[in-house]
Amino acid sequence: MSETRPTQPRRLSEVAQWDTETDVAIVGFGGAGACAAIEAADAGAEVAVFEVASAAGGSTALSSAEVYMGGGGGTRVQRACGYEDATEDMFNYLMAAQGDLADEAKIRLYCDESLAHFDWLVAMGAKYKDSEYKERAIMALTDDCLLYTGNEKAWPFRDIAKPCPRGHNLEVDGDNGGPMLMGILTEQVERRDVRVEYDARALALVVDEVGTVQGLVVRMDNQERNVRARRGVLLAAGGFAMNREMLEHYAPVLAQANIPVGNPGDMGTGILMGQSVGGALIHMDQGFITLPFYPPSSLTFGVFVNAQGQRFVNEDVYHARLAHHAIQQLGQGIYLVVNHDDYHHPPYLNAEIAGTGETIEEMAEEIGLPPGNLSHTIAYYNEHAANGEDPLFHKSSEWLKPIEPPYAALDCTPGSGVLYPFFTLGGLDTLPTGEVLTMDKRVIAGLYAAGRASCGVPRTAAGYASGLSVGDATFFGRMAGKRMAAAPPRS
Amino acid sequence: MSETRPTQPRRLSEVAQWDTETDVAIVGFGGAGACAAIEAADAGAEVAVFEVASAAGGSTALSSAEVYMGGGGGTRVQRACGYEDATEDMFNYLMAAQGDLADEAKIRLYCDESLAHFDWLVAMGAKYKDSEYKERAIMALTDDCLLYTGNEKAWPFRDIAKPCPRGHNLEVDGDNGGPMLMGILTEQVERRDVRVEYDARALALVVDEVGTVQGLVVRMDNQERNVRARRGVLLAAGGFAMNREMLEHYAPVLAQANIPVGNPGDMGTGILMGQSVGGALIHMDQGFITLPFYPPSSLTFGVFVNAQGQRFVNEDVYHARLAHHAIQQLGQGIYLVVNHDDYHHPPYLNAEIAGTGETIEEMAEEIGLPPGNLSHTIAYYNEHAANGEDPLFHKSSEWLKPIEPPYAALDCTPGSGVLYPFFTLGGLDTLPTGEVLTMDKRVIAGLYAAGRASCGVPRTAAGYASGLSVGDATFFGRMAGKRMAAAPPRS
Repeated sequence: MSETRPTQPRRLSEVAQWDTETDVAIVGFGGAGACAAIEAADAGAEVAVFEVASAAGGSTALSSAEVYMGGGGGTRVQRACGYEDATEDMFNYLMAAQGDLADEAKIRLYCDESLAHFDWLVAMGAKYKDSEYKERAIMALTDDCLLYTGNEKAWPFRDIAKPCPRGHNLEVDGDNGGPMLMGILTEQVERRDVRVEYDARALALVVDEVGTVQGLVVRMDNQERNVRARRGVLLAAGGFAMNREMLEHYAPVLAQANIPVGNPGDMGTGILMGQSVGGALIHMDQGFITLPFYPPSSLTFGVFVNAQGQRFVNEDVYHARLAHHAIQQLGQGIYLVVNHDDYHHPPYLNAEIAGTGETIEEMAEEIGLPPGNLSHTIAYYNEHAANGEDPLFHKSSEWLKPIEPPYAALDCTPGSGVLYPFFTLGGLDTLPTGEVLTMDKRVIAGLYAAGRASCGVPRTAAGYASGLSVGDATFFGRMAGKRMAAAPPRS
Repeated sequence: MSETRPTQPRRLSEVAQWDTETDVAIVGFGGAGACAAIEAADAGAEVAVFEVASAAGGSTALSSAEVYMGGGGGTRVQRACGYEDATEDMFNYLMAAQGDLADEAKIRLYCDESLAHFDWLVAMGAKYKDSEYKERAIMALTDDCLLYTGNEKAWPFRDIAKPCPRGHNLEVDGDNGGPMLMGILTEQVERRDVRVEYDARALALVVDEVGTVQGLVVRMDNQERNVRARRGVLLAAGGFAMNREMLEHYAPVLAQANIPVGNPGDMGTGILMGQSVGGALIHMDQGFITLPFYPPSSLTFGVFVNAQGQRFVNEDVYHARLAHHAIQQLGQGIYLVVNHDDYHHPPYLNAEIAGTGETIEEMAEEIGLPPGNLSHTIAYYNEHAANGEDPLFHKSSEWLKPIEPPYAALDCTPGSGVLYPFFTLGGLDTLPTGEVLTMDKRVIAGLYAAGRASCGVPRTAAGYASGLSVGDATFFGRMAGKRMAAAPPRS
C-alpha cells in the first residue's frame, strides 16, 4: 500500500472499516477550527477536532488577535469612543481595499454580521475595553481596544468610504491577545461535548465514488485511523507560510520575504487535501507582506524612495500596503528619508542607516542614488508639505511637514537584512458557508474550509488591515460550523 | 447520470466499454498538439488528435508564429547574420527575464536543444531567410527572419547576458506566419498515420482507481465516446484567455486588460481536466499583457510617465514589460510624452492624445498632472540624455535624446480605451517531458500537458519575448510526443 498523503485522497472502497465516527470532523485547532467546533456543538452536532500540535492555538495564538469589526452604527466600543460606523462604509472600504481580488459575497456577509460577531466573541468571554488607542501603531501594546489598523484614512480609500477605526484589541497588556483569545476559545470548546485529539496528523481525505467527502485518515498514536464524518470535514489547518517548497512554487514573491509568520503546522496540509478532491485554489501567489516601519509614528513624516530617488506611495498607508509597493519597485533600493530629529529606531525593522547628510545631495551620494533626483523629490515634497499638500500621493496633511536637515535615510531594501514578515493568503475557494468549490464553482459535498486554508476576505497585502485574518478565520469558522451542523447526516 | 464535465473525471469503473482506442490521445490541434502528434507518430505510436474546432490551427495559427531560438554558436540564420549566440547567454537571459518564476529545468532543456529544434522545424518545412529585420518592432512584416523580440538589449538584462536577437520569423510577408506554420505542421500530421477528429470536444478524463489516466471522454457526432489511450493523454487545448469567469476568478489583473488574444477554444478546458485528477496549477494569475506602443520606433525616444508625472521604466524594453510596469502604477494615468516631430500614430494602440504644449507645464495642465513634477522629469531626462545617459532607468543610449518642444502626450491609461492585449501564462505544472505533476510533485501516470494548458518557459509579462509561447508550445509539444510514444502501453 502506498504512503498516505494529503494530495491523494483515499477511496471509500479502500476503507476496510471506520475506526471512529463523528458528525463534524475539524482539522486544526486554531481560531477557525475552535469557532467552528463551538458553533457546530451548539447546534447539536457531534464534533471531533484533530490538531497536529500538542495543544490548541494555531497561528491565531501567535497573532495579536485583533479582530476587524464595525458597521451597523458601531460596535459597543466604537460607539463608546464616539464612532458611528456605517455598514456601507465598512463594505465599500473592504471592497476597494481588496480591489480586483475582492470576494463580494464574503465581504457582504462579514460586514452585515460584524456586530453580531462582536457580540458572539464577547459572549464567549472576550473582553474589549471601551477605549481607543490613538497612536499610529502595528498593534496596541496597552489594554486599549479600538485602533486604526488599515488604510482607511489614507488616499485613495478615504475618498471612497468614511474612515473609521475597526481594529479591536483585547483587554490585555503587551502583545498577548493571541494566547488570550485562544485560551478563551479553547475553554469554550472544552466546556462542550467536543472530542479533541492532539498530536493527530490529518493524512488524507476519504472520498466516495461520486466525489463526496465521507471522512478522513488521521495518524494518532502512531496508527492510521479512518474517521467517518457524517456531516462533513472542515479544513482549518492554516496556510503554507512554513512550506518552503510550496512558497517557491506557488508564491515566489512571498519567498523573497524573510520572516514567515505562523506556526510550524502551516504547511499547507489543508490546502493540499482540498485540492486532492478537486477543490479550486485561488490567489496562491498572494500574501500578507509587510515592512514594519512604525512605530515610531514619527517616521511617517519621512518619505520612502526607490532606487531612482522617487517616491512611490503615500507613506501614511498601512505597513503592508507600503511593503506591497516597495517590492514592486525596479532596481535595488528602498530608503526611508527623514529629518534626523524625527528619527527614532523602529524596533521591528532591523534596518541600517544607509546615509546621512546636511544636504540631500551629500546623503544621496553616500547611498549611491543617481545625483540630482532625490534632491528634487525632497524639494518638491517640502514645497507642498509646507502648505499641507501632497500633489503626488495625497498623504494626509496630518503627516505632512517639510523634511529639514540634517537628514538620515534608513535602508529598507528587500534582501538587505531588513525584516519583511509574511504569511499566505491564497487557498481553497469557498462559499461564505465554508463549502469548498471546484473550478466550475460546484460544491464538493461534505467538504468545508476556513481560515488561511481558504482564500477569505483578506487577499492582498495592498489592502490588508490588522484584524482581517483573525476576523475572517473566527467569523467564517463559525459559519462553517453552523452549516456543517445543519447538513443532513449521511447514514 | 450527471453531465460530463472537465472538472469531474470519469471513473474507469463507470466506463462500460471503450468506443475507440489509441496509444496517444491529444486534445487540441494547435502548435503543441501538432508537434506532439508528429513526434509520437514518428516514434511508432498510434496517435489520435481531438480538436474542438472544424480545422487545425489553435492559437498558434492566430499568432505571428515567431519562435525564440538560439545558443550553441547560433542558428543558421543567426550565424549568417553575424551572431555567434552562446547557450549560456540564452539561458542566463531567460532565467533573469523569468526571475522568481523561472523553471530552470525547462529553460535548461529549451536552450540546450534550441538548435536541434530549429533544424527540426526546417526539416518539417519551415522556411527561414538568412536575413535580419533591424527595426524595433512587435513583429517583422517582411519575410526577413531574425529580430530582437525581448528585453535582451534593455537594462538590466544587457548586463546579465550578452544580447543577441533570437526571434525567428518565417519567410512570409505580412502577419502570416501563424497560418503558414500551422499549414506546414498540419500537412506533416496528415502525411503520417494520425487520426484527426475535428468538431470533437474533450469532456473529461477517465481515471482508474489508483489515479492513472486511462483515456478520455470526447463528444463526437453528438455522442459521448470513451477513448482509451494506452500510452497517455496530452492536454494541448490552450490557455483560458476566452473564459471570462476563469479570468475574473484566477487572473483578475488580466481581466483588466481588454483584448484577449487567442481562439474561441481557449476556455481552459485542458487546465480544468488536468486539475480534476490532481494536477497542480501554477501561476494562474500570470499572463502576457502588452501595450503595443511601437511601431513606430520613434516613440521609444519618448518617456512614459505615471499619474505623478514620474518615469517608471526604461522605455526601450519589450512592449509587454512596459505594460507589466504600467498596470502596477498607483493612480489613474499612464502617458507617453514625446517630441511632436517624433510622433507618428502607433497603429496597434488605439490611443488618444492627452495633451500638447509648447511647454511641459502647459501640457501637464492640459493632462491634469500635478504641477511642477513632469517638468522636472523631462528636464532631468533631457539633461542626461544629452550626454547619452539615463541615470534612473539606464535606457540604452541608442534611444536617448532630449525631448524638445513642441510636446505631445499619448494617453495610455488602462481603461481609457487604449489596447492592452493579453493571454494567459498560468496552467498545469509539468516536467520538461510534459508529464503532469501533483502538488507534491508526483507524476500523474498517463497524463501530459503542453502549450498554454501548461505553465511553460514564459511565465510573466515582465520577461516575455515574442516567440516564447510558440517556441515553448512547439518544443515541449515535441518532448511530450516523444515521451508518450516511449511509455509502456497499458494492456
